[in-house]
Amino acid sequence: MKPVKGGITAPKGFKAAGLHCGIKSGGKKDICLIVSDTPAKAAALFTNNKIKAAPIILSMENIKSGSAQAIIANSGCANACTGTDGLEDAKLMTKAVATALNIPDKLVLVASTGSIGSRLPIKHVLAGIRTLSKKLSHSGGQDAADAILTTDTRKKEIAVGIRIGGKTITIGGIAKGSGMIAPNMATMFAFITTDADIPSQILKAYLKESVDKSFNMTVVDRDTSTNDCVFMLANGMAKNNALSAKDEKIFRQTLDNVCIKLAKDIARDGEGATKLIEVRVTGAKTEKEAKMAAKSVAGSNLVKSAVFGEDPNFGRIMAALGYSGADFKPESANVFIGNEQVVKDGKAMNFDQNIVKKQLAGKEVIINIMLGQGSGIATAWGCDLTYNYVKINAKYHT
Amino acid sequence: MKPVKGGITAPKGFKAAGLHCGIKSGGKKDICLIVSDTPAKAAALFTNNKIKAAPIILSMENIKSGSAQAIIANSGCANACTGTDGLEDAKLMTKAVATALNIPDKLVLVASTGSIGSRLPIKHVLAGIRTLSKKLSHSGGQDAADAILTTDTRKKEIAVGIRIGGKTITIGGIAKGSGMIAPNMATMFAFITTDADIPSQILKAYLKESVDKSFNMTVVDRDTSTNDCVFMLANGMAKNNALSAKDEKIFRQTLDNVCIKLAKDIARDGEGATKLIEVRVTGAKTEKEAKMAAKSVAGSNLVKSAVFGEDPNFGRIMAALGYSGADFKPESANVFIGNEQVVKDGKAMNFDQNIVKKQLAGKEVIINIMLGQGSGIATAWGCDLTYNYVKINAKYHT
Repeated sequence: MKPVKGGITAPKGFKAAGLHCGIKSGGKKDICLIVSDTPAKAAALFTNNKIKAAPIILSMENIKSGSAQAIIANSGCANACTGTDGLEDAKLMTKAVATALNIPDKLVLVASTGSIGSRLPIKHVLAGIRTLSKKLSHSGGQDAADAILTTDTRKKEIAVGIRIGGKTITIGGIAKGSGMIAPNMATMFAFITTDADIPSQILKAYLKESVDKSFNMTVVDRDTSTNDCVFMLANGMAKNNALSAKDEKIFRQTLDNVCIKLAKDIARDGEGATKLIEVRVTGAKTEKEAKMAAKSVAGSNLVKSAVFGEDPNFGRIMAALGYSGADFKPESANVFIGNEQVVKDGKAMNFDQNIVKKQLAGKEVIINIMLGQGSGIATAWGCDLTYNYVKINAKYHT
Repeated sequence: MKPVKGGITAPKGFKAAGLHCGIKSGGKKDICLIVSDTPAKAAALFTNNKIKAAPIILSMENIKSGSAQAIIANSGCANACTGTDGLEDAKLMTKAVATALNIPDKLVLVASTGSIGSRLPIKHVLAGIRTLSKKLSHSGGQDAADAILTTDTRKKEIAVGIRIGGKTITIGGIAKGSGMIAPNMATMFAFITTDADIPSQILKAYLKESVDKSFNMTVVDRDTSTNDCVFMLANGMAKNNALSAKDEKIFRQTLDNVCIKLAKDIARDGEGATKLIEVRVTGAKTEKEAKMAAKSVAGSNLVKSAVFGEDPNFGRIMAALGYSGADFKPESANVFIGNEQVVKDGKAMNFDQNIVKKQLAGKEVIINIMLGQGSGIATAWGCDLTYNYVKINAKYHT
């Protein structure tokens, strides 16, 4: 796996563009278009929130064919809780893309993020789409990564090359996160492109598997958005042969890595965050229980506040394990903050506070938990809870 | 139901005392003893956290007989994650009470709250118990209510009288809350006394029913403590006749009111809180689903931050409803903030921002949700998420 430049437009045959069309104030980029030169095999995962935004409802319909050629995405307005009018707006967006590119509108996926309950300024959006279609380029990945951000403070992108099926194939991805991030389903925006030739059913299975290990293990505030989605397009332009078992494994591991990189970027850049928290659980009865335990600790407001305050408050880690729903004997639990053991066999250790405080002072805090019940392992990512999280969500109508 | 003075010592035959024995710094009260003149019928509910503090483990054992005569409780140290040593300390506490009062130690319930992982200064505690046993009085309820507080900013107590079974009976209660408050089990400390004569099996059923409607519907941070417990003692000294069906109903309603009053006090005084949030859900398919929906909204970090910022951000209410797990059609949902409707049939309304901001400016914010699916109703209580919540939990090792 070799890192390459170009993000979402690094794979062969993908172009993108991003610009400001007038949704956000202050001239910030707020809409992007990502297009494959040819129809691509496509897979998508959507939020499990009962209340789904209009673009989610439309994209769920359009993905059914297993093919897609374009993704249109805006930030600054979620187009959620907007009724049939909002659904009409989402359809106008896909139709405008289809007209500009001369492709069927069923091949267009649409995603919106931003505040819930307001209508899109649809005239500006449609004018933006016309301009975008003329600005598409192989170097447009950066602008696309920029245009999907809301309270994010930085772009989240990656591209990597691997040699499989006799060819070099590339996978590129961008994501946005920040708030309303909860872990038990497809989460947030992430768009992934590849020039690999892979049947769409297999693509979907691989994507699900990778998302379960990455975006679904990320938690900022245990609030699950109405607009979360992960889209993946594979246009086959690398012209690789059918994948051998070994190649399949390489592809899946690479996709895992791409998703985990983007998921960690989302956690690290959670609203108000100053630190990334990585919670590694081993020795759970099952993988499912390991995930429950890891997410419970990563999502605990009390653990998150303690990490912000660089306070070695292992008791809160124990409490979060205890209410996680994972089955374990308290007297078998061992907990490390960084390299320093703080709980041995369920009992507080007389550890060196200064060493643990030093571990907590870093930008990445790793909590290692051994439950001693079986072979289930999982890792979850979160961030600290800070004054700025409260400020962002109390003072600004996001 | 008539409010009376005296809190936990208002019912006939109950005495209490509270003092500083040396667990907390600064001379604040940190231990209390509550005693019935005669053995009382007793019921208790405990945290479902897998990791249970030593006093919880011991009290779970002692309550099995259905009788108790004394409650010893300390704040400032949770005696959790302290292994067999901690269990020994808890036993020493019940034995010291038993010796001082000349009663069997099985009739003593014990509870501890405070930071997890440190040992009790047991010598100070045992000396404190000896002093407490000499200071017991019918007006000691206030000191007991004081001695169980941790990051709470005020006492939580109530006492009411009702006429049932041919006599006036009294129910008194005290509680503590503040942080690590999550709603799906017996939660926090609440001690309730009554002089009613009620069999312990019935007492337990009534207590469970009331706790499910009150403490279990309260959420501060979705973190469930290792030390939560609710104890209730009924010493029968009101010498009431067996209760008629009508009297039973009055007793249960009164117990509901006592528990709801204390639960609301806990939510209102959540760590860093400036406002009480009351979420009323009607029209859910079932009561269970109504509870899920109400607790999801009351517990959402984003809703809580918006309430702190007095921002009419109904989109976050909709998102929290959508991920609550309750089954409903989004297009049937109606949401009111205070008296002002903000969502009609699942769609954002063009409401008057200033009116809603005025509703949010009060000390109690009421969110009314009608799901339009059936007859399930529930109410949950929470508080806003503020800079001070982060400060309390980042800067102080609680």
